[in-house]
Amino acid sequence: MSAPVITFLSDYGHDDDFVGVCHGVIARLAPEARVIDVSHGIPRHDIRAGALLLRGSLPFMPAGVHLAVVDPDVGAARRAVALRVADAGRLLVGPDNGLLSLAAEEFGGVVEAIDIGRSPFRLEPVSATFHGRDLFAPIAAQLAIGADPASLGDPCDPDALVRLELPRPTIEHGALVAHALYVDRFGNVQLNVSHADLDGAGLRLGQPMAVSAAGTVHTAHYGRTFGDVAPGELLVYEDAHRTLALAVSRGSAAVRLGIVLDDEIRISSLR
Amino acid sequence: MSAPVITFLSDYGHDDDFVGVCHGVIARLAPEARVIDVSHGIPRHDIRAGALLLRGSLPFMPAGVHLAVVDPDVGAARRAVALRVADAGRLLVGPDNGLLSLAAEEFGGVVEAIDIGRSPFRLEPVSATFHGRDLFAPIAAQLAIGADPASLGDPCDPDALVRLELPRPTIEHGALVAHALYVDRFGNVQLNVSHADLDGAGLRLGQPMAVSAAGTVHTAHYGRTFGDVAPGELLVYEDAHRTLALAVSRGSAAVRLGIVLDDEIRISSLR
Amino acid sequence: MSAPVITFLSDYGHDDDFVGVCHGVIARLAPEARVIDVSHGIPRHDIRAGALLLRGSLPFMPAGVHLAVVDPDVGAARRAVALRVADAGRLLVGPDNGLLSLAAEEFGGVVEAIDIGRSPFRLEPVSATFHGRDLFAPIAAQLAIGADPASLGDPCDPDALVRLELPRPTIEHGALVAHALYVDRFGNVQLNVSHADLDGAGLRLGQPMAVSAAGTVHTAHYGRTFGDVAPGELLVYEDAHRTLALAVSRGSAAVRLGIVLDDEIRISSLR
Repeated sequence: MSAPVITFLSDYGHDDDFVGVCHGVIARLAPEARVIDVSHGIPRHDIRAGALLLRGSLPFMPAGVHLAVVDPDVGAARRAVALRVADAGRLLVGPDNGLLSLAAEEFGGVVEAIDIGRSPFRLEPVSATFHGRDLFAPIAAQLAIGADPASLGDPCDPDALVRLELPRPTIEHGALVAHALYVDRFGNVQLNVSHADLDGAGLRLGQPMAVSAAGTVHTAHYGRTFGDVAPGELLVYEDAHRTLALAVSRGSAAVRLGIVLDDEIRISSLR
Repeated sequence: MSAPVITFLSDYGHDDDFVGVCHGVIARLAPEARVIDVSHGIPRHDIRAGALLLRGSLPFMPAGVHLAVVDPDVGAARRAVALRVADAGRLLVGPDNGLLSLAAEEFGGVVEAIDIGRSPFRLEPVSATFHGRDLFAPIAAQLAIGADPASLGDPCDPDALVRLELPRPTIEHGALVAHALYVDRFGNVQLNVSHADLDGAGLRLGQPMAVSAAGTVHTAHYGRTFGDVAPGELLVYEDAHRTLALAVSRGSAAVRLGIVLDDEIRISSLR
Repeated sequence: MSAPVITFLSDYGHDDDFVGVCHGVIARLAPEARVIDVSHGIPRHDIRAGALLLRGSLPFMPAGVHLAVVDPDVGAARRAVALRVADAGRLLVGPDNGLLSLAAEEFGGVVEAIDIGRSPFRLEPVSATFHGRDLFAPIAAQLAIGADPASLGDPCDPDALVRLELPRPTIEHGALVAHALYVDRFGNVQLNVSHADLDGAGLRLGQPMAVSAAGTVHTAHYGRTFGDVAPGELLVYEDAHRTLALAVSRGSAAVRLGIVLDDEIRISSLR
């Protein structure tokens, strides 16, 4: 028998003790649980970045309790929830602000939702500003040691949960109009475009492309990996999440193209 | 039986391998111990920030060995110690420079102090600059596997340990005069003020306040959580450590008010 | 019996989920393995910094599987390897770009090399840009649960592996000519100089020295630890890796001397 697993994602960063304290709370309540940190580097309050990373990473994590806290409205009216999804053995815990919604869809949708805001398993006195410590971590620990989600709070309607809407790519005058969804540490820019979308726009692997961003048109190569273009050149490629992305070999596409989140990017053929 | 726990706090950061090497040393000597990282983001050499984070976080950690290294005088004359405190099952290990003192008080005071500077359990050859690896981690590992602290060095007088003095708030002309003790990643500013101090100054939850910092007077609301004020507005609130703090909703109080550590902050009623 | 250990070093940083996802992949394949993070703060694509940290840190780690990923040519022609070294129980996994070479030498050299690039134990579909997740982590997990390296890929010639060449110090006109190999978080500058090299140049502990860097000559003291000089003064010392380094007490030698990687540093006696 393996130890029960809790994965943990947040925007708490590593400067303070927020992450450590949550680990401590879990270790006291569920000493046999193993905690795997997904990332705590989510930009502050960026619910969508957190949701995208959760959706992309959780399929690679063992089934278990998936704790996530990006919570700009902590202590205010937003609901706090524990969710059972269709995929066996996976439970999501966090604020009901869309953070969990993309991962929940990835796992087949929510089949049971519990409002944990007034759970008797909170850590008293509950602070108004650190629900990671006082609410979410204790609930995750209870789930890890086998508590029935229904015992941890009040049932609520899965259809009433907050869902995150992502921008959709379109085709205009033969150009694929995409958006910058996420920028990683290397400056690679993830787009809201799948391989199929590129095919639909008549764009093919190996072709030169025109990439228009921040008012400038750049020439790019549609390749597989960074080494397919010379250092400093622009690459369009399918990234490890199987969505389209922009990179500059040995450089930063975000810096080179001046891209910030949600910017519109137009991609068209250069034939 | 749970695994023995070692918690670990330092100013080593995550750029280098200092933290990883200490984990390795512990894993070799005490493979059954579980290490929980409290934080390694303490500002370099900031003993007080480390002491404050230890005091605030350790009560949420399982009882065990609490290793802490913020050690500007490594290799020089400062003592290295292992401390048993009044609270059962808790041992502190680190430099005797005040870093451990606030947590020791929180746990009822030191009941046994051991000078570990010449411990036979050091890792030879002991470097002059990395006592985390060569001294503190090995001692923490020995304690985790059940060694008697007295067997690890020479007894010393608990009353001779270095204590950290924090500035005390005062009341002048009806204003509470506080100090900025710690700034977290979100720019929230922790003050040396308890709820009782505010009461003593005649300040009440829900009231508008005047906050004077860095030569400017700002209007603030005394509320419970960030959502109690509009984005960009200044909030005075009781933080998760139950001490007073300043925040700007969706912003940074430290940046907005131009506050640096130890700055004097004056808070008075706006009635 | 202790849990099998996998150590993990990379340039993935902590902003994204790259490290977390690799932990997840390992936890699924080898739930009993314990993962110790050496560092993920290696400067992007800096193979030499990664190689130096591996060489310095792995001797302090339990024997086990040592996973390392600094991989600018991911998805291109570079080989991916698993290496058995002379020291019992240690296996190295990573790209064959020199990253593993210094640690391999430290452990007595490579006695068996396996090309894992087409291993049946890869995670399908293998991405072109995230071999940490799809190739290296799965192979490390297989080794941790006892797989024979030979079963994981195709044997290759240990002598054909890429080796990293470090600059060698020389003596010119009585001055020791060294190079800046690595700069840590505190601004301490590691040189390619051993204690013996200094002796050879007639430099002795306790003496004043002239340190020439970036076109300026500075006076330094050759001491043991930071406290041996006044705050702000320059120290030459043997660091925790037993190689020579430069520090400024309570400051940054890299900033003060304007040193960047590979800069030439000349050290001579001031008698």
